[in-house]
Amino acid sequence: FFSYGTKILYQNTEAVQSKFFPPLQKAMLPPNSFQGKVAFITGGGTGLGKGMTTLLSSLGAQCVIASRKIDVVKVTAEQISSQTGNKVHAIQCDVRDPEMVKNTVSELIKIAGHPDIVINNAAGNFISPTERLSPNAWKTITDIVLNGTVFVTLEIGKQLIKAQKGMLFILHIFIGPMCYFIVPQSLLSLAAEWGKYGMRFNVIQPGPIKTKGAFSRLDPTGEFEKEMIDRIPCGRLGTVEELANLAAFLCSDYASWINGAVTQGPKFLLSGLHPEKSKTKTNLDSQ
Amino acid sequence: FFSYGTKILYQNTEAVQSKFFPPLQKAMLPPNSFQGKVAFITGGGTGLGKGMTTLLSSLGAQCVIASRKIDVVKVTAEQISSQTGNKVHAIQCDVRDPEMVKNTVSELIKIAGHPDIVINNAAGNFISPTERLSPNAWKTITDIVLNGTVFVTLEIGKQLIKAQKGMLFILHIFIGPMCYFIVPQSLLSLAAEWGKYGMRFNVIQPGPIKTKGAFSRLDPTGEFEKEMIDRIPCGRLGTVEELANLAAFLCSDYASWINGAVTQGPKFLLSGLHPEKSKTKTNLDSQ
Amino acid sequence: FFSYGTKILYQNTEAVQSKFFPPLQKAMLPPNSFQGKVAFITGGGTGLGKGMTTLLSSLGAQCVIASRKIDVVKVTAEQISSQTGNKVHAIQCDVRDPEMVKNTVSELIKIAGHPDIVINNAAGNFISPTERLSPNAWKTITDIVLNGTVFVTLEIGKQLIKAQKGMLFILHIFIGPMCYFIVPQSLLSLAAEWGKYGMRFNVIQPGPIKTKGAFSRLDPTGEFEKEMIDRIPCGRLGTVEELANLAAFLCSDYASWINGAVTQGPKFLLSGLHPEKSKTKTNLDSQ
Amino acid sequence: FFSYGTKILYQNTEAVQSKFFPPLQKAMLPPNSFQGKVAFITGGGTGLGKGMTTLLSSLGAQCVIASRKIDVVKVTAEQISSQTGNKVHAIQCDVRDPEMVKNTVSELIKIAGHPDIVINNAAGNFISPTERLSPNAWKTITDIVLNGTVFVTLEIGKQLIKAQKGMLFILHIFIGPMCYFIVPQSLLSLAAEWGKYGMRFNVIQPGPIKTKGAFSRLDPTGEFEKEMIDRIPCGRLGTVEELANLAAFLCSDYASWINGAVTQGPKFLLSGLHPEKSKTKTNLDSQ
Ligand SMILES: NC(=O)c1ccc[n+]([C@@H]2O[C@H](COP(=O)([O-])OP(=O)(O)OC[C@H]3O[C@@H](n4cnc5c(N)ncnc54)[C@H](OP(=O)(O)O)[C@@H]3O)[C@@H](O)[C@H]2O)c1
Ligand SMILES: NC(=O)c1ccc[n+]([C@@H]2O[C@H](COP(=O)([O-])OP(=O)(O)OC[C@H]3O[C@@H](n4cnc5c(N)ncnc54)[C@H](OP(=O)(O)O)[C@@H]3O)[C@@H](O)[C@H]2O)c1
Ligand SMILES: NC(=O)c1ccc[n+]([C@@H]2O[C@H](COP(=O)([O-])OP(=O)(O)OC[C@H]3O[C@@H](n4cnc5c(N)ncnc54)[C@H](OP(=O)(O)O)[C@@H]3O)[C@@H](O)[C@H]2O)c1
Ligand SMILES: NC(=O)c1ccc[n+]([C@@H]2O[C@H](COP(=O)([O-])OP(=O)(O)OC[C@H]3O[C@@H](n4cnc5c(N)ncnc54)[C@H](OP(=O)(O)O)[C@@H]3O)[C@@H](O)[C@H]2O)c1
Repeated sequence: FFSYGTKILYQNTEAVQSKFFPPLQKAMLPPNSFQGKVAFITGGGTGLGKGMTTLLSSLGAQCVIASRKIDVVKVTAEQISSQTGNKVHAIQCDVRDPEMVKNTVSELIKIAGHPDIVINNAAGNFISPTERLSPNAWKTITDIVLNGTVFVTLEIGKQLIKAQKGMLFILHIFIGPMCYFIVPQSLLSLAAEWGKYGMRFNVIQPGPIKTKGAFSRLDPTGEFEKEMIDRIPCGRLGTVEELANLAAFLCSDYASWINGAVTQGPKFLLSGLHPEKSKTKTNLDSQ
Repeated sequence: FFSYGTKILYQNTEAVQSKFFPPLQKAMLPPNSFQGKVAFITGGGTGLGKGMTTLLSSLGAQCVIASRKIDVVKVTAEQISSQTGNKVHAIQCDVRDPEMVKNTVSELIKIAGHPDIVINNAAGNFISPTERLSPNAWKTITDIVLNGTVFVTLEIGKQLIKAQKGMLFILHIFIGPMCYFIVPQSLLSLAAEWGKYGMRFNVIQPGPIKTKGAFSRLDPTGEFEKEMIDRIPCGRLGTVEELANLAAFLCSDYASWINGAVTQGPKFLLSGLHPEKSKTKTNLDSQ
Repeated sequence: FFSYGTKILYQNTEAVQSKFFPPLQKAMLPPNSFQGKVAFITGGGTGLGKGMTTLLSSLGAQCVIASRKIDVVKVTAEQISSQTGNKVHAIQCDVRDPEMVKNTVSELIKIAGHPDIVINNAAGNFISPTERLSPNAWKTITDIVLNGTVFVTLEIGKQLIKAQKGMLFILHIFIGPMCYFIVPQSLLSLAAEWGKYGMRFNVIQPGPIKTKGAFSRLDPTGEFEKEMIDRIPCGRLGTVEELANLAAFLCSDYASWINGAVTQGPKFLLSGLHPEKSKTKTNLDSQ
Repeated sequence: FFSYGTKILYQNTEAVQSKFFPPLQKAMLPPNSFQGKVAFITGGGTGLGKGMTTLLSSLGAQCVIASRKIDVVKVTAEQISSQTGNKVHAIQCDVRDPEMVKNTVSELIKIAGHPDIVINNAAGNFISPTERLSPNAWKTITDIVLNGTVFVTLEIGKQLIKAQKGMLFILHIFIGPMCYFIVPQSLLSLAAEWGKYGMRFNVIQPGPIKTKGAFSRLDPTGEFEKEMIDRIPCGRLGTVEELANLAAFLCSDYASWINGAVTQGPKFLLSGLHPEKSKTKTNLDSQ
């Protein structure tokens, strides 16, 4: 039942040790763990966002998903809703536009109430050698990943403070140094600042997970997948279902003590200067 | 059913926002998640170790616990076993002694088979201003927390490589700069080096959790608990049950993609120069 | 001779241990260390930028400073030039505007040649509790500190790659979680990527230094200075001259081996739960 | 004049960009910067320790060096002393032995007075795949690098607190995850705790520098040097002289504001999955 449209596309590039680490794809939390809860997921129409929405919905949450392509979020909302039997709403929103974010948040509150869970999952990024990066391209990335996330967080945070209702954030952040660091640090700061209002802020750094969106942008030719996998100790990419289970745990009351934390999926590790020369590993890795 | 002898001693010092974050104390994973698995937990007779053993056992694992006080581990083993209906074994072991570790590991393998889960939880630490710390006191701490953990890991690792059977480690580490940093970093290195043998290495940095052992050593007069809580965004300590749920997740196949990661409970945060002067927070916190 | 207009305004809030750590205010590098070098400093008209420009100029560099207030940079340029006997040029530039950055860089190259040293020091930031932060205020900060720095770096980098001439960057970043993390990480990435073109990228995280600009924005009422100082192990703020000496070292050929590094001034430290209860410090600090 | 016995052995493996980054080998600080100061350097008979001693001595310091091989430290002491004209003393000391450390410190104080500068530079490490690492080998490494450093720091710290005289520590730490993390963190903690006594604690993470000692242990066959260099953005190793200049700066009063900081030499960087595929770098590096 916990299975989405998104397939694990092809993972024939797995390293040999991945046989020790098969993914467990079914829901981990008890049924109805999110009964009565409202979840808002940006970028919920595709990839990881769709996976998390599916799981939260199947565990009882009422979900609201938002992204630019209203058609995509609408189709996904209906598909999930018919699978899980729980309502999923779709709103059109470009998170880069503060005015649109404001409207989306007030529609969200109108149709579903103040959210208990917010997942900042919208992101767009592409790949380019720095010397060919234009000022505009740079701005586009920071606008979505950084400013968009901040706009959503600020607007919902202010509404929740007014309503005096706690809730939580999870933030997904994308591959690459730029946004890998800034968003987590701001979150830790918010955990300290807004903890008193009953809000939790946590971050997942998921490592690479094969979704159509991320991989078409970051590895369009497929040539880097194998090299990425060589750097992952388990020898395989994570799956959408695995990430969704981790996210559901952090969103749940089982994690009500966890605030201001960063949770990592597999990290890229420097796996030694040469894979076959394992004797160099211990001594040079983390320099 | 998932309730242990260890009480949440007294938490009358909770900050006001803790009402938003009540602990969810029941088991999170599906029943029988650890059916057929063998778990080895050092320091499993008390506190966090006892809590994790209780949960793993109640979810089907065959557990082996080991520490210096054979009476304590024996009583705990029987108590848990009678609660859960699953076998729990007790072995006497001082992790500082490589010979004793070797013997313990071979007994472990004899009575229960190669372990699927190893939790390095044994630790002892106490508190002292540095100028009164003697070389001997320093050595005692590093011997247990650092060397003991390494001896257990090396010995079991070697046995598993021989037996060509994957398994996983979780490592708990204690409050304080010394061991907070070194053990995690060595683990990340091992994840890269021994991932190919099917082993996973992950770390939990749990933040403060009220156990009799830890708090009698770190806060004997009880005077620091309140100050600690003031630095935790949720306004309360974590509970043994919450930590056990997190550990069980990381030990389970739901986390088979997670290797070489550090998972944090609540962090102490610099919550602003003065709690009431919230306007300083955002700008000065993370310097 | 190495003394600027900027005074150490008032430091009557110093902690008692600061008597052990008096600042050494004279130039550290040998005379003429920057003879024949061209340095470009954004925000060079005031505060830290003026201090670094003064020192580089007094050590022989030809300097070009740029900021929005052309009057301010002009006056500073003349003042320094008359002190040091070396040419200092002033250009008007708002680093948020990619077009203006492009023109500034081409003027810089025309009047002084390709720069050997670039110091991204322009920044503006202010203080606000997050719940009162507007989307616009957020954007203003990221535009200067983040995007401005990137625009300057991209434009000069591209010109230098074309000209096949190595050079180096230093980046100053401001107090606060937001920009404290993102800019350093992007720089490390650039060091790896553009090292092959002969460029070095290093970061200084200076900790608080009393300049009129920074302190009028971050501590307008003066009430936080004392609290900041309580968190600095030396019990005093850094001085403009001290920062300038550190920057000059990193810009010089004495540091030609240092690339992709972050150099810290004093860090705010968690100095124990209570300053007078030193016994808690060792064990709880870095949680 | 600032030239030691230790040669830059052979650096024919340098990457092409190293031509942009030639080392500047002469003394950076003004003459007599350490006049009247006493410096204590463990492991001062060879490699980096010898280099730092030579520079401090040539800038006026009275130096005391200590290590296990009394012949080696004696010869070095005489050699430096005759070069610089300033007294250098030699003491035999195994830093792993708390009693011997105590005696060494009291001899140091007797012959030269309380030290102003202490450089914890003694270290020994070797290389081995973890599965072949014995408990004893592990203990040997932690005993020197970790415990030895702590013993020296504790003993001198206590003497200085008694004498109410400030001073500073610099700590060198070796290549590899184990000791790379623990010692710096303990130091930051000490900076917060002992700053009030007038002590500064700073760390240098130098990256690889070619000394006979370090390279004979870490790269006995010479096969990894090239691979290391490929990961260093400047395309070459650091030199003993460069490290000595950096250390002298941090020991000097120019750095009296810097306490509790970690200063990095070149870091090993993940320079992209494939050096020639620069387009992957920006996006995957820091994951
Ligand atoms: N997959 C991975 O390996 C990986 C690893 C680390 C982090 N992440 C992060 O996880 C998140 C999801 O990634 P994914 O792999 O699921 O890729 P994806 O399918 O491309 O998801 C991105 C989603 O963001 C939405 N979006 C983009 N720009 C938006 C905007 N301006 N306003 C509102 N919505 C916007 C997109 O919908 P519209 O086009 O309709 O707007 C899309 O649904 C991203 O933040 C990504 O950076 C992914
Ligand atoms: N509670 C917290 O707030 C907290 C926070 C962060 C980390 N931790 C870590 O979590 C772990 C468990 O702590 P706890 O709170 O449960 O305290 P605890 O009840 O005192 O547990 C420590 C256990 O370690 C065992 N042990 C100590 N020295 C040993 C040795 N040389 N060989 C074998 N076993 C040894 C003890 O049993 P014997 O005396 O019988 O040997 C005891 O069962 C520790 O690693 C602690 O540092 C706790
Ligand atoms: N002082 C500290 O404690 C401290 C600590 C950490 C980091 N820093 C950083 O160090 C740098 C210098 O700070 P400071 O203390 O010297 O303060 P400051 O005197 O206010 O310097 C800031 C400079 O940036 C220029 N600037 C601002 N916006 C600009 C823009 N859009 N385009 C071009 N130039 C612009 C300003 O000139 P115009 O107004 O003429 O444009 C001014 O000269 C800043 O990056 C600051 O964040 C300072
Ligand atoms: N070279 C590098 O690339 C590099 C990089 C990072 C960090 N480091 C660190 O920098 C320091 C110096 O390294 P190096 O390259 O100069 O190597 P080195 O020449 O081998 O220096 C090590 C010194 O430590 C002394 N020593 C070893 N064990 C000792 C003990 N138990 N008690 C007292 N002294 C002891 C040795 O003298 P005796 O044999 O006479 O005792 C020797 O003089 C080390 O801490 C090293 O880890 C070096």
